[in-house]
Amino acid sequence: MYPQPIERLVTELAKLPGIGRRTAQRLAFHILRADDEDALGLADAIREVREKVGLCEVCFNLAEGPRCRICEDPGRDQGMICVVEEPADVIPVERTHEYSGLYHVLGGALSPIDGVDPEDLRLAELSDRIDREGVEELVIATNPTMAGEATALSLADMVRGRVRVTRLASGLPVGADLEHADELTLGRALLGRREI
Amino acid sequence: MYPQPIERLVTELAKLPGIGRRTAQRLAFHILRADDEDALGLADAIREVREKVGLCEVCFNLAEGPRCRICEDPGRDQGMICVVEEPADVIPVERTHEYSGLYHVLGGALSPIDGVDPEDLRLAELSDRIDREGVEELVIATNPTMAGEATALSLADMVRGRVRVTRLASGLPVGADLEHADELTLGRALLGRREI
Repeated sequence: MYPQPIERLVTELAKLPGIGRRTAQRLAFHILRADDEDALGLADAIREVREKVGLCEVCFNLAEGPRCRICEDPGRDQGMICVVEEPADVIPVERTHEYSGLYHVLGGALSPIDGVDPEDLRLAELSDRIDREGVEELVIATNPTMAGEATALSLADMVRGRVRVTRLASGLPVGADLEHADELTLGRALLGRREI
Repeated sequence: MYPQPIERLVTELAKLPGIGRRTAQRLAFHILRADDEDALGLADAIREVREKVGLCEVCFNLAEGPRCRICEDPGRDQGMICVVEEPADVIPVERTHEYSGLYHVLGGALSPIDGVDPEDLRLAELSDRIDREGVEELVIATNPTMAGEATALSLADMVRGRVRVTRLASGLPVGADLEHADELTLGRALLGRREI
């Protein structure tokens, strides 16, 4: 019903996660009406990100060159590796300003039901890094989900005896109240209680 | 915190309506991970829509050439013009399959408070069409909002005596119930009641 180029744009926009056809139509009309700078700026930004951003050859974080900024920073603690599932998980850890070591991005979490087996994750590369780089501690920061926990356990087994392995604490989020905490989280908070 | 090309893409995506920075980050990571066809397909579709789609020289609907498909279709009833605010409003009217005339897209609705005055809308062009094309009926399909109603009234004044002017009926949407209808809509439904 629309001219073909609009139909095409709506179809492409609707492939984005969480964007249905209605929203895609709204976005397409916005792109039609926007000024040249904004509309073509978006098209260029997509091309640029695809051309320039790849994965770090050491830790598989996002990188503009062969290595990411964190791996290239000599000021980072070379004795610690924080293991995360996805490149997007590096950012929230960095934002805490509580961590100054390196990272290793697995590229997912173990989930045999979804067809993600150990050989689909970058576990061998992590094992090599531990042997080669003199790592002292592995901070496992996979998500506190079924798949993330399974990955953490399997990873801990893999490196046991070669390096100290820690896991992010599970417990009540800051600002939460007990009344609305789910029992699993509250149970973890109890198990992980600390002296004050 | 991200590599610069990702920051740029997030910034461009966050300019889209209804897309906040968080959603823009999610979309940017999706675009990074997607296969080439989907990611570059979106960039190409944006360029293509900007290059190929313009406004119809007669009715200001979206068009791939100088005139839109509806103006070029000799099968449409040349004696009726349906007046809408935006190009996007043509589609819902077409979807009803109850209208076979032409359109005229005003490019907005009168709203002096937002700086939209009569000279900002394509009213003179509509007046010319009425004089030139032998139009018999003007179906005013501006939105049932303050601005849309003001536009409808002003338009009716402008063409009074030269052409028959009608307005879309206001009333209960199909499938609604009286209990939850707002009093304005129900009032309109009462005023516009019809013999059965």
